[in-house]
Amino acid sequence: MSPLQVVFALYPQVTQLDFTGPFEVLKRVPGATLTLASRIGGELRADSGITFSGLVRLAEVDTPDVICVPGGYGVTAALRDVEYIAQVRRLGRAARYVTSVCSGSLILAAAGLLEGKRAACHWAWRALLAEQGVAVDEGRVVHDGNVITGGGVTAGIDFALSLTAELAGLETAQEIQLALEYDPRPSLDAGSPERAPTAVRARVQARARQAYPERRQALLDARLRAAAHSLE
Amino acid sequence: MSPLQVVFALYPQVTQLDFTGPFEVLKRVPGATLTLASRIGGELRADSGITFSGLVRLAEVDTPDVICVPGGYGVTAALRDVEYIAQVRRLGRAARYVTSVCSGSLILAAAGLLEGKRAACHWAWRALLAEQGVAVDEGRVVHDGNVITGGGVTAGIDFALSLTAELAGLETAQEIQLALEYDPRPSLDAGSPERAPTAVRARVQARARQAYPERRQALLDARLRAAAHSLE
Repeated sequence: MSPLQVVFALYPQVTQLDFTGPFEVLKRVPGATLTLASRIGGELRADSGITFSGLVRLAEVDTPDVICVPGGYGVTAALRDVEYIAQVRRLGRAARYVTSVCSGSLILAAAGLLEGKRAACHWAWRALLAEQGVAVDEGRVVHDGNVITGGGVTAGIDFALSLTAELAGLETAQEIQLALEYDPRPSLDAGSPERAPTAVRARVQARARQAYPERRQALLDARLRAAAHSLE
Repeated sequence: MSPLQVVFALYPQVTQLDFTGPFEVLKRVPGATLTLASRIGGELRADSGITFSGLVRLAEVDTPDVICVPGGYGVTAALRDVEYIAQVRRLGRAARYVTSVCSGSLILAAAGLLEGKRAACHWAWRALLAEQGVAVDEGRVVHDGNVITGGGVTAGIDFALSLTAELAGLETAQEIQLALEYDPRPSLDAGSPERAPTAVRARVQARARQAYPERRQALLDARLRAAAHSLE
């Protein structure tokens, strides 16, 4: 197996499960080296309140085979972090695979990495991604050339198994699926906006809508900065 | 909603996804307070290599509503950690719900919390749990009175949604499922030992078998200590 470098480009208030799912899958790929990185390195607090330590600085990261950008409550602040977005752009332009989970695709869009691409997003943020001219795909895992994106949070596990099969072959992916006993059996059937009860969907969507105007503005500002930058 | 105290009893080399899944689900239950605890508190390195910080000491934790014990490569060492097992027993005897994910049920057994109970376990460790007189159940989530146990790694998400429905009602569980977009669609079908190809299963099982004799001895020793303790 050839070595495989995977970098998770994190930021404060990221959703931990967005990257823990892919981390656990990709960590088991023979020869894989996984790096957690953020703009400042060191410690990072996820939106669940859990704190991680030992992160490296994004500026110190060499071009990886895979860059993965997870979503989270902190996406809005990350979109405003000029240096963070610049680092995502630098790594994403050179990486073999540009990937995201959940609302991480908004960050890829801000970094100019989804031009002319199809991409997935957490269902509650699909409209915002579509506004940016991205061909939003409702698939749970969406492949478009070297861009592979997953839907909301738990889709990261499906995304990572799919990427593993592409990178390391079917049998390696099957071994990892079995080791993680990934034979999901939700006891409820409300995991997609189409199948959740209307009242349930309305309450979850209402929470996203509260954050929508601010996040939309942060995304538009980031895209304007990227456009100005490319005109310089 | 009444407050809900959940404690994750962790140890070095725990599998991060075993507790991240339940943590993300239970964190979203209104009124829930989640605590990561270990014998020594402070920092803890998961078997994936990720380091967490800010853990509290188990000895300082008051009786929770839910104690959850995840599995991981570090289970063998945790079984030998007399103080850790004693703390799990103390908290488990008083908690409203005693729970585990993956090989965490071996720790519950060592702590004497599965006497006369049915319980789940990561498939590769079911035989070891059965040896301890526990009625091993191949279900992904197993309820037996106040003991709720999940199968391997990713079963923690199913376990936590099931517990949420019991604790906080169906609609809250549905909201959380939708917020996490938990509509799993594995691209492969090798997540259970019954459906994985024979060669794939053999390779994953071979790795568990290497660790089996040492883990078995650690579990037997812990059970002997517990029996001696209860005779004193």
